[in-house]
Amino acid sequence: MEEVKKEFGKHYLIELIGCDKEKIQFLKDVQEPFLQAARKSKTKILKHLFHQFEPFGVTGVIIISWSHFAIHTWPEAEYVALDILTCGEMDPEITIADLKHAFNAQEVNVKIIPRGF
Amino acid sequence: MEEVKKEFGKHYLIELIGCDKEKIQFLKDVQEPFLQAARKSKTKILKHLFHQFEPFGVTGVIIISWSHFAIHTWPEAEYVALDILTCGEMDPEITIADLKHAFNAQEVNVKIIPRGF
Repeated sequence: MEEVKKEFGKHYLIELIGCDKEKIQFLKDVQEPFLQAARKSKTKILKHLFHQFEPFGVTGVIIISWSHFAIHTWPEAEYVALDILTCGEMDPEITIADLKHAFNAQEVNVKIIPRGF
Repeated sequence: MEEVKKEFGKHYLIELIGCDKEKIQFLKDVQEPFLQAARKSKTKILKHLFHQFEPFGVTGVIIISWSHFAIHTWPEAEYVALDILTCGEMDPEITIADLKHAFNAQEVNVKIIPRGF
C-alpha cells in the first residue's frame, strides 16, 4: 500500500467475482445484506440511498461519519463492485467477508488506497 | 494505470488540496457546485444524498447509471476527498476541473483505478 503524509482514511476497492446472480439482481436481495454488513463494521450509519435498475442491477450508497460505502451489482456478469472509505476504528474486513458470503462470491480482490496528501 | 481483462468502469480517486475552507464547510456551499459539476460530465443524475456534519464538513453522494460520485470535505485541513466511478462516455475531467475552481483548490492529485476482473 502506498503512503501519504497526512492520511484521512483508507479507501478499499473490492471486486466480488463469480457471485450468485440470483442474489444480486434486486433491491430486496441486496439492500438488507449490505446495510447489515455495514453495521457490523463498527460504524454508525447516518443515511442511505439505493436504486433499482431495469431489468436488474442495484446501486446503493451508505453515508457514515466522513466516510461511505458504495455497491454496484452487474448480475449478468456475476460481478459486484464494492467500495468502502474507512475512518477511525471501523473494520471493513467484516463487511467484505459478510458480503462475500451473502452473494456467494467465488473470488474477492481488494485494493487499499490511502486518502490524503 | 493498471489493467483488468473485463473492465466495468474506471474509479477516479481525487484529492483536492489547499481548498478555501470557507467554501467547503456547509451544505449550502458544497451541494449545488457538486451537483452542477456532476451534470457537466455528460451523465444523468438519478438520486443524490447529502449530510451536514457539526460544526462543519459535508458528505455527499450522487447515484448515476451503475456509477457514483462521492465527496467528503475536511474544512479544518482545507482538504476534499472526491471519488468518481465512471461508466460509458462520461468525462470526469470536467467535474474535477469545475470543483477545483469552485473550492479554489491549490493542488489536485488523481489516481485512476480500473474496476473489474
